[in-house]
Amino acid sequence: MFEFKKISPLYTDLYQLTMGQAYFMNEKQDTEACFDYFFRKIPYKGGYVVFAGLGELLEMIEGLRFQGRDLSYLKKQGFKDEYLDYLESFQFRGHLTGMQEGEIVFPFEPILRVEGGLLETQLVETLLLNILNFQSLIATKASRIRHSAGDRQLSDFGLRRAQSFGALHASKAAIIGGFDTTSNVLAAERYGIPPAGTMAHSFIEAFDSEIEAFRHYAEAFPDQCVLLVDTYNTLKIGVPNAIKVAHEMEAQGKRLSAIRLDSGDLAYFARKSRKMLDDSGLDYVKIVVSNQLDEHVIKSLLDQEAPIDIFGVGTNMVIGRPDGAIDGVYKLAASGGKARLKISDNVQKTTLPGKKKVLRYLDQDGKFYSDCVALIEEKEPGRMIHPFEKEKSLVLEGRDFEEVFFPLMVDGKAVQKSQSLFELRERVYERLKRLPAEHQRFDFPHIYKVGISERLSDLRTQIIHQHQGLS
Amino acid sequence: MFEFKKISPLYTDLYQLTMGQAYFMNEKQDTEACFDYFFRKIPYKGGYVVFAGLGELLEMIEGLRFQGRDLSYLKKQGFKDEYLDYLESFQFRGHLTGMQEGEIVFPFEPILRVEGGLLETQLVETLLLNILNFQSLIATKASRIRHSAGDRQLSDFGLRRAQSFGALHASKAAIIGGFDTTSNVLAAERYGIPPAGTMAHSFIEAFDSEIEAFRHYAEAFPDQCVLLVDTYNTLKIGVPNAIKVAHEMEAQGKRLSAIRLDSGDLAYFARKSRKMLDDSGLDYVKIVVSNQLDEHVIKSLLDQEAPIDIFGVGTNMVIGRPDGAIDGVYKLAASGGKARLKISDNVQKTTLPGKKKVLRYLDQDGKFYSDCVALIEEKEPGRMIHPFEKEKSLVLEGRDFEEVFFPLMVDGKAVQKSQSLFELRERVYERLKRLPAEHQRFDFPHIYKVGISERLSDLRTQIIHQHQGLS
Repeated sequence: MFEFKKISPLYTDLYQLTMGQAYFMNEKQDTEACFDYFFRKIPYKGGYVVFAGLGELLEMIEGLRFQGRDLSYLKKQGFKDEYLDYLESFQFRGHLTGMQEGEIVFPFEPILRVEGGLLETQLVETLLLNILNFQSLIATKASRIRHSAGDRQLSDFGLRRAQSFGALHASKAAIIGGFDTTSNVLAAERYGIPPAGTMAHSFIEAFDSEIEAFRHYAEAFPDQCVLLVDTYNTLKIGVPNAIKVAHEMEAQGKRLSAIRLDSGDLAYFARKSRKMLDDSGLDYVKIVVSNQLDEHVIKSLLDQEAPIDIFGVGTNMVIGRPDGAIDGVYKLAASGGKARLKISDNVQKTTLPGKKKVLRYLDQDGKFYSDCVALIEEKEPGRMIHPFEKEKSLVLEGRDFEEVFFPLMVDGKAVQKSQSLFELRERVYERLKRLPAEHQRFDFPHIYKVGISERLSDLRTQIIHQHQGLS
Repeated sequence: MFEFKKISPLYTDLYQLTMGQAYFMNEKQDTEACFDYFFRKIPYKGGYVVFAGLGELLEMIEGLRFQGRDLSYLKKQGFKDEYLDYLESFQFRGHLTGMQEGEIVFPFEPILRVEGGLLETQLVETLLLNILNFQSLIATKASRIRHSAGDRQLSDFGLRRAQSFGALHASKAAIIGGFDTTSNVLAAERYGIPPAGTMAHSFIEAFDSEIEAFRHYAEAFPDQCVLLVDTYNTLKIGVPNAIKVAHEMEAQGKRLSAIRLDSGDLAYFARKSRKMLDDSGLDYVKIVVSNQLDEHVIKSLLDQEAPIDIFGVGTNMVIGRPDGAIDGVYKLAASGGKARLKISDNVQKTTLPGKKKVLRYLDQDGKFYSDCVALIEEKEPGRMIHPFEKEKSLVLEGRDFEEVFFPLMVDGKAVQKSQSLFELRERVYERLKRLPAEHQRFDFPHIYKVGISERLSDLRTQIIHQHQGLS
């Protein structure tokens, strides 16, 4: 049912298709265009965003074709035959250049540059935003939760509260950001994620006693048995029953994997349960907790030294609470050989014109220091300027920098081999090691410096003046 | 690509499948079970929830089958052959009884009762929660936005900020709650929603002047031309250019449909633009606004008498901001002929045992007064009790009531014919007319009374005492 690579090109906003027709009627479909993908605000009051979803997007764009069903629907909507004929043989033949999936990215810098004909670059806008905005939102949330959890195991339990089929991409992006497993079996199957699960309260209730339920589950899954201990009374009933069953399992040469706490004060119950388990010689039995966890609750639990081994995180991760969206946009930077911009009374909403790239400057330890947005032909800007406050600038001369823009798709074909989720997760970990800790702090993180080159700044001023001349 | 009716049964939490195997090994798969679907907290600090997603869920459950790919994946995960053979011929043959789609529902009352064998009723849990929680979240948000917008047109512009494929269900549920159109073409095609769209800033920028862009668009879409007027300067450039093009269209016997404002103070710009249009004899040209709208912003705009005809609502609707999820749960109420419950230290999390239904009591005007949760065999409870504070009760005797529980699926087959989104929207409107205004208020809405019958209360007390005896 989910053939992601073959997403219908109707998965877009109507205006992309109507603008396409207007371009086509004016023979502007192949006019050279360049769009930037960027966002303005970091979610979660955080200091960085993990860029995710790119590999899948590239596959979707490669496979984007209008089928008969799509075209007959558009015909009914009054689109013109010549245009529909054009769409019938449409495929994206443009280029994507920019940051790699798993890169750490910041507001106001281009993450991707999309170049090609006006029509094709416009037609992929909505899909690109829909896929990248959401996966980056979730990968960023997951990375914050990983930050709190240290090396403890993190499992995605969010499917039931996810925004319907958004669940599939959420479970996937969670791994990129730092999770280990998912309860979502379809996501596990499609994306090669280890599936994980325990048991529900209903399982306990379906038997006449808790211990009977525990024994039956242990019999069915002797090698991966996690017992939910809080159905009736955690410390008086649940943990003692789990201990009894663990000893019965030992008599058969098996080991209880873990107990799970899903309610009450998790720090208190984890500590009490740990002691009861340890006092019964069951120090190998792990403790899983769940129930409204997020990066802040996990941090608090571990600050209290709660003896927890595995966190099951649901709603707050899978929907990227509290923000629920990244405000990623896709803005025209050049067309027909000219740099373009949108002017706004809100200076932060005036876009950056021209074909651009990003250079990442480093501090003495090789850690990320600042990002400079420059025009593609610039080699090494000596100075960067605050994107909205011209009087603020920073000398770059003599500093080391890395290129962070790479060719991603050329002539409609992805140019890098696709990477596994765990390879991407590894890249996220590596990049985050180079992001100074003060940008990763939850409370009022230090703002990472993103600036623009003097030449870019001058170009922007020049085009704004032209338009003001027009008025 | 989206064959919704044929969703894979792997779209579930792993524990549903592992518990299923444990039931199967104990020959408990057909043990009679009854689950309740309900939620505890209304999103948006609101007074009600619009129940949505049911029709689609029933189709998904009817079509739920394990395919070869699903089974071979499960085999690799270590599931037992006898169980996989059972799953191969699995189909849901149980029953759903409860509220109709489009009903107005409240916390702590069952919305659906799912009955059947233990294994099948457990296997549909995650799918049911994933589909109903999200569509109800969005339909509720849309109905709040409709409440603010009066009879003005509402269009969903959210696809680019949606939680990836959650967009499809969001666009659909928005119609059920009160929207008129969507920009999401795939949702429009699949669900029969009128598609709507305007143009992007990039279209304007792709031409050498705004008026040239306007003219080309008007030529391409003379019958549905909406011009975006805020690319360079709304009042000095954009609106005058739109007026010029409108007059050129008139000379060809056509009419400009609308202008669109997407930035700045929308009340101010709408008022100024309206006057400029009217002064130019263009009182028929409508004004569309967009940009971070929600029910509160729209209410404020209309309280200011901003002359707006159409609202395009994106992010805040499509992800159900600020909540992003309804906390719907699925709890065992009976199995093996016995009423069951989960006990919690948090009294609000102790579940209601037994097979139940809901009666909706009415006031003298036929408006909704209170809902009483009763056991299915009860005819007319004379009194209802607060679900958590026993000393609070309400006399019901002599009051009119409606049954709100109906058969929805019998023996695995949906029993009602499916309804169009606009029929469902009409039901929502009809039901909301009967919900007193104080429950629809945004600020501190009056809490709708939901209680339980004395017999149900007694049953709960009795089972809790039994479990306490066990401890």
